[in-house]
Amino acid sequence: MNPASPPSQPVPPPAAELTGAMFIGGRRVTGTGPEVRAHDARTGAPLEPAYPGGTQEDVAAACAAAEDAFDPYRALHPADRAHFLETVADNLTALGDALVARAHQETGLPVARLTGEVARTAGQLRMFGHVLTEGSWMGARIDPAQPGRTPQPRPDIRQRQIPLGPVAVFGASNFPLAFSVLGGDTASALAAGCPVVVKAHDAHLGTGELAAQAVRAAVVAHGLPDGVFSLLVGDGPTLGTQLVTDPRIQAVAFTGSRAVGLALARTAAARPRPVPVYAEMSSVNPVVLMPGALAERAAPLAEEFVASLTLGAGQFCTNPGLLLAVDGPGLETFLDVAGRAVTADAGATMLTERIARAYRTETDSVASHPGVEVVARGALPDSASPGQATLMTVAAKDVLADPALQREMFGAAALVVRCADLTELTETVRRMEGQLTATLHTAPSDTEDARALLPLLERKAGRVLAGGWPTGVEVGHAMVHGGPYPATTDPRTTSVGSRALERFLRPVAYQNLPHDLLPAALRDDNPYGVPRRVDGDIELPRP
Amino acid sequence: MNPASPPSQPVPPPAAELTGAMFIGGRRVTGTGPEVRAHDARTGAPLEPAYPGGTQEDVAAACAAAEDAFDPYRALHPADRAHFLETVADNLTALGDALVARAHQETGLPVARLTGEVARTAGQLRMFGHVLTEGSWMGARIDPAQPGRTPQPRPDIRQRQIPLGPVAVFGASNFPLAFSVLGGDTASALAAGCPVVVKAHDAHLGTGELAAQAVRAAVVAHGLPDGVFSLLVGDGPTLGTQLVTDPRIQAVAFTGSRAVGLALARTAAARPRPVPVYAEMSSVNPVVLMPGALAERAAPLAEEFVASLTLGAGQFCTNPGLLLAVDGPGLETFLDVAGRAVTADAGATMLTERIARAYRTETDSVASHPGVEVVARGALPDSASPGQATLMTVAAKDVLADPALQREMFGAAALVVRCADLTELTETVRRMEGQLTATLHTAPSDTEDARALLPLLERKAGRVLAGGWPTGVEVGHAMVHGGPYPATTDPRTTSVGSRALERFLRPVAYQNLPHDLLPAALRDDNPYGVPRRVDGDIELPRP
Repeated sequence: MNPASPPSQPVPPPAAELTGAMFIGGRRVTGTGPEVRAHDARTGAPLEPAYPGGTQEDVAAACAAAEDAFDPYRALHPADRAHFLETVADNLTALGDALVARAHQETGLPVARLTGEVARTAGQLRMFGHVLTEGSWMGARIDPAQPGRTPQPRPDIRQRQIPLGPVAVFGASNFPLAFSVLGGDTASALAAGCPVVVKAHDAHLGTGELAAQAVRAAVVAHGLPDGVFSLLVGDGPTLGTQLVTDPRIQAVAFTGSRAVGLALARTAAARPRPVPVYAEMSSVNPVVLMPGALAERAAPLAEEFVASLTLGAGQFCTNPGLLLAVDGPGLETFLDVAGRAVTADAGATMLTERIARAYRTETDSVASHPGVEVVARGALPDSASPGQATLMTVAAKDVLADPALQREMFGAAALVVRCADLTELTETVRRMEGQLTATLHTAPSDTEDARALLPLLERKAGRVLAGGWPTGVEVGHAMVHGGPYPATTDPRTTSVGSRALERFLRPVAYQNLPHDLLPAALRDDNPYGVPRRVDGDIELPRP
Repeated sequence: MNPASPPSQPVPPPAAELTGAMFIGGRRVTGTGPEVRAHDARTGAPLEPAYPGGTQEDVAAACAAAEDAFDPYRALHPADRAHFLETVADNLTALGDALVARAHQETGLPVARLTGEVARTAGQLRMFGHVLTEGSWMGARIDPAQPGRTPQPRPDIRQRQIPLGPVAVFGASNFPLAFSVLGGDTASALAAGCPVVVKAHDAHLGTGELAAQAVRAAVVAHGLPDGVFSLLVGDGPTLGTQLVTDPRIQAVAFTGSRAVGLALARTAAARPRPVPVYAEMSSVNPVVLMPGALAERAAPLAEEFVASLTLGAGQFCTNPGLLLAVDGPGLETFLDVAGRAVTADAGATMLTERIARAYRTETDSVASHPGVEVVARGALPDSASPGQATLMTVAAKDVLADPALQREMFGAAALVVRCADLTELTETVRRMEGQLTATLHTAPSDTEDARALLPLLERKAGRVLAGGWPTGVEVGHAMVHGGPYPATTDPRTTSVGSRALERFLRPVAYQNLPHDLLPAALRDDNPYGVPRRVDGDIELPRP
């Protein structure tokens, strides 16, 4: 791969000032629709500035700019696209304390966690830079002509991946950086060569505007077409639907609730020309505590569990919300220690008042089930959006009789399912919905039972853990953050890690193209220096 | 990769006798529902035997057997699965003349073409054998642990692809072997590790039963679980819907009309747990005759075009149904020569009486458009299912005003679009629907105009050809037989070529699994000898 060219202009530092305006292609546009505002998560006070919402014309303008930008942007040398992503990462990092302070105010998440999230988000952009340069993403394949083949000669056929077109991104409330304006969906779509139109999340509008400044400054610095990136503001049902139904949008990426994810998927499927929706929705992330593991170390497992459960007020897609274990003394010890840890938990401010209300409603509803016993509740913190840790138990037979007990309670609540034996535990797992993760805690004595359970767990989840807890999601090349429906709308993909960009690509074959019309990745001299598959076998470029 | 084990039993030769019974797991079951029958395409006479249709219980039994077979089948050593596919290919080839004779009777397709299709179908199975052995399909990725990383250690994360589960396959009428019971969909799903339940196409029930014998004999010979393969008979709206909505079915593959493909997609999306539908539907396969090419060799282009148009009575998904050219003397010569070739065409028997009727209706409807001129019609053959070649022209402005003129006329009919200039030609292409193929005929003087058109053509089609005609679809590693909606329901895939098996796989990540619980493809010693991506970079196995 050739060295990337430097930015075409000096990089202006992003301004850490908030204006309340959207980014539509190269313009800052103040909306004329209904105003939305972020709120201080802890106090509930509305925050400045107000963000007047965009109109249908604003949506159309952003999508038109994205369409105009698509062909020149996808034609860039991949190393130039990598360099652009690196500049975005630099700009994000440069926002520093101002970004973290605003995100802390809007989300209530701790400063240390948000500081880590900035680093993760920047690292994610740089990882895609590496992926672009390595070049396997192009999917270059060459089946050379066989002019002498009988009964008919074989033509020359070559294949590469091309980007789908403009992508609409809907960010999540719970990761205001890593899954939002500049998160994994935006980074992977930009890496794939797709312009992005983001609908800002109402809960962290200021954080979103700052992140958008980081992208916009990089677009200017690299002299890219203005429509490569736009940020819209407005309410989901109206502006979100306008965005998903715009004919120029070719794919949709979303992280959030099941109700909204499914609504977006229905809207996209009903378009005259349907487009894929990658919605990462809900999961209770079952954790199986095998008998040997409980016998050996019930107490430390309980401590680790409550730490994972209460991390970030439990507001993780991968929060461990459902535990399964065989009844017995090991489980009693586990519940005793976990119950005391939950009782000692101080609670935390949740992301928004609405989320805190929904959390209370969900936990109260589960707690009121006749089969459910509340083991412990933590303290109710003094906050406009209080999150109170909650630990409950229920018998497996009740879960089997009422699948609603397996629903996600978004927050620091978990339900421990008491199983009569491993057969009942296995049956409970078999009847679960699709999940982002499934975790097994084992001791050596559990190995054969764990081996028998693994084929079932991998059919249920995108990631299977042995030991540890599911709340950390590594950004890497082997990560899968995805899983069978209803964890996501498309189990064939991941929204975290380098394979996330494959969601925005599709293959095209070229038959007998004259050499000077072939895409660079497919020319005989391999000018991009990428791995290619020739007659089915991989050929690596010379180092 | 280890050498494949031989079949566990001697391979019984498949019996070339027709019984009218279905294959449900290991049983031959005669249906008790409404009877369906194949017909002699040329005479319209009903053929023996009758095939009584399956009931909902039969569908459920086939799906239950497939589910039972799934875990043991996917756990096979990939070389064993390759060997099984090779035995299926041997069995198909061994059916020989009996298979071709029945297919000829049922479809009216020429014996030479069907003989070639047997070879293609067997070759396709062997290609997947090679793919299984090479091993990239497993998508093995390893991000090794970094225990010393700060602020937190990195866990060990590994990824592989696993099969989705039982797959429902609906065959096409026009390729009774290559796109039917044993065609690309079945071969790629079996290669991926998915059991298959086929709904037989009514138009070639005998051919389907023979092909099913070839699979069944291989299942027995290799001692595989019975449910790896089933063949059901019945009407599409009833039995087909029962099959697609069975909760054990995890994906659907279909080749056929747009109406049926979209109905299947809607049905699958409305399931409590939606599953992907890979429907390859309609395409008019635009061919652009650039001015230089027409000036240089209008007459030979016209001869080649009519040969492609009338091949197999025009019953190819990739039939060239829409030509675009700039008006002028070159186009007049082209139309003159093509018109004479069409007039001289003897016509051919189409696949079924219903298809022949639909073809007449569609061509008459297009011909009756006030802007359309019929250039030539071929002879009307003496057949119960006559296909008469038809060549028409229309002005681009009429196509722009009435997109219905771009619809598929399944058969040997084409519409030549006269464009005022390259600008109008480009605009006509821009407003076309998604296609399986797009073809460019150029001379050296057209190179710059062709270069400008290419980004548009690749956005419209799954395969772009320069020179040649789209009707031949190579089975290889670089082929894409797919394309943007409505050519297919999923442009990210191909239904022909080695990448077809990716449709039936999804990634799973394994975090910190003890080494003895890891899938073989991910163990440190790489026992399958497959290419793997370690920290993002490809490592090839030692030869």
